[in-house]
Amino acid sequence: MPRLYVLVLSGGAGTRLWPLSRRERPKQFLDLLGDRTLLQDTVDRVSETVPAERIFVVAPPEHRALIHEQLPELRSDHLVVEPYPRGNAAAVGLAMAALAAFDPEAVVAVLPSDHVVEKRAELRKVLIAATTAAERGHLVTLGITPTAPDTGFGYIEAGDKLDVEGPVEVRAVKRFVEKPKRDQAERMVAAGGHYWNAGMFVWRVEEVLRAYGEHLPATAKAIDALRDAIGSPRYESVLGEVWEETDRTTIDYGIIEKASNVAVVPAEIGWHDIGSWARLAELVQKTDNWASGDQVAEDAHGNYVWAPGKTVALIGVEGLVVVDTPDALLVTSKERSGDVKTVVDRLRREERDDLL
Amino acid sequence: MPRLYVLVLSGGAGTRLWPLSRRERPKQFLDLLGDRTLLQDTVDRVSETVPAERIFVVAPPEHRALIHEQLPELRSDHLVVEPYPRGNAAAVGLAMAALAAFDPEAVVAVLPSDHVVEKRAELRKVLIAATTAAERGHLVTLGITPTAPDTGFGYIEAGDKLDVEGPVEVRAVKRFVEKPKRDQAERMVAAGGHYWNAGMFVWRVEEVLRAYGEHLPATAKAIDALRDAIGSPRYESVLGEVWEETDRTTIDYGIIEKASNVAVVPAEIGWHDIGSWARLAELVQKTDNWASGDQVAEDAHGNYVWAPGKTVALIGVEGLVVVDTPDALLVTSKERSGDVKTVVDRLRREERDDLL
Repeated sequence: MPRLYVLVLSGGAGTRLWPLSRRERPKQFLDLLGDRTLLQDTVDRVSETVPAERIFVVAPPEHRALIHEQLPELRSDHLVVEPYPRGNAAAVGLAMAALAAFDPEAVVAVLPSDHVVEKRAELRKVLIAATTAAERGHLVTLGITPTAPDTGFGYIEAGDKLDVEGPVEVRAVKRFVEKPKRDQAERMVAAGGHYWNAGMFVWRVEEVLRAYGEHLPATAKAIDALRDAIGSPRYESVLGEVWEETDRTTIDYGIIEKASNVAVVPAEIGWHDIGSWARLAELVQKTDNWASGDQVAEDAHGNYVWAPGKTVALIGVEGLVVVDTPDALLVTSKERSGDVKTVVDRLRREERDDLL
Repeated sequence: MPRLYVLVLSGGAGTRLWPLSRRERPKQFLDLLGDRTLLQDTVDRVSETVPAERIFVVAPPEHRALIHEQLPELRSDHLVVEPYPRGNAAAVGLAMAALAAFDPEAVVAVLPSDHVVEKRAELRKVLIAATTAAERGHLVTLGITPTAPDTGFGYIEAGDKLDVEGPVEVRAVKRFVEKPKRDQAERMVAAGGHYWNAGMFVWRVEEVLRAYGEHLPATAKAIDALRDAIGSPRYESVLGEVWEETDRTTIDYGIIEKASNVAVVPAEIGWHDIGSWARLAELVQKTDNWASGDQVAEDAHGNYVWAPGKTVALIGVEGLVVVDTPDALLVTSKERSGDVKTVVDRLRREERDDLL
């Protein structure tokens, strides 16, 4: 796979896995599923396709040390630091400037750092097909085959099959559907040909920069200035100047939904976001009750308990989620674990920074 | 109140409040209800009636340091140490030997260390009446007015009022009923004149020693030998010799249910044992959810969470009991919290001494 690079997006806050996921260590830095963290897994799973020296990461400054600790093989000039959050269109643009300076012919796969992909061989096939399509000038999105009419994702309606050879088909995009209502989601899933937009993209750097120029000219101007300054002592001051000129938007709204050359590669890769404790529980829970260590259960079923180093005793309870950390204890049900966000919002309003 | 002494029984294991209550620090040593521990409360609440120098405590050797730490005013020769458990008839007998040696005319109130009594003024009245009856030669039990047809207690059926003057009536005992079936308990509570046996007694030391002689002669012989040896260098070796000769039984079965001179003083003293986490929750829970520290609740009701130093977040859960300790986490419901015993029994069988 000559020329394929990976850009890992590590800007997520991961509040839906509070109280374990915190601002100082969001969920991509946690080993929720095994020995490796989600960030490490993200790099591991493309290691057969993309060598370590072609990995880039974009992240806020406060996670610089954590990233180098968890990814010791990452080149330090491949960790791109966004000064403060401006939406992922700006963050990706900043990383594109670094990539363009490093290799103007680069094709890059943009991958979130906090997702789960169970089928690595399938992912490799998808990346190969997407790279071929990207080399032909497409902005490629990976489309996840829906497993349920989930209303928490945006959907992509696929159009005609494109004439791109490869191990997986590539299709044109007919339209994007923002997070739908339940009945609309049901219709799309029943109809087939609709995919979840999981925020994973493959494109030629020069092609996406052209799209920035067309759809987000202010950001494109900033990217040009940064591209010229990379590797020079001026870089930090240029970044400080141009960052506030970038558009506050996302790649999806700002670029992908507006561009005419977007393609989708249906990706049957065993993909999961970890949007709640209940979803994490689904992934790890091979036994009736799941606990991070020893457990004793009496008439207890379907519970998920994170309490490292502790023996967990469960008596007469069902479907609970309990997450025990040194300064906060969450007790909820799988059904309600999505509402952790409400608690985090309250703590934010109450300025409980110690707990965020 | 001349001559009234208090003997505090501190032999309980308190396993029903696991995982907080442990062999090394059973529940009487815990501050579950406020700043003072249950043991300290037991002494505090009789302080107007019995001065510190007339308090005795009987306990196993492993709690000696804890007791002196929590009751610094306790005379060291008033802490009576039972070498190993032989049932409370032996433990009380051992303490009676110490009391008889200290003051042969003593009247003593025997009080468990792990109960709650909310009405101290009422307790004082009850102790005054019971002391008068004890001075007339009665073995007096305090009878708790039942608040429910509880099948976890033994019952005392009261007979005729005795001719003993005092602030509270004293009645003869018609019979003792061991832990009853539900319908029997309901009949007794409906009939009135039946009281819970809470294991609290008042008697003249010489009178109870006479009863030991009559009903538990082996224990009585041991007590005589100990009484003679108290204060002498022989004491420890005599104790080592005679302890294994004592009867393995309780005061209730061994003495009280057999003696003919037993009286009962109805005691409306706001008494509670803390037989489960749910009962403790009833005592402390003035708010919808109770937590040991900060809490954030969303659609959560009637939960009890012990997690000192932690912020507790409750979402969409009801009637749970969660107890968080450094090495064990209990998650149960109020309804099922009595089954903690089952878990403790399992840990015992599995020889998980680290958790007991």
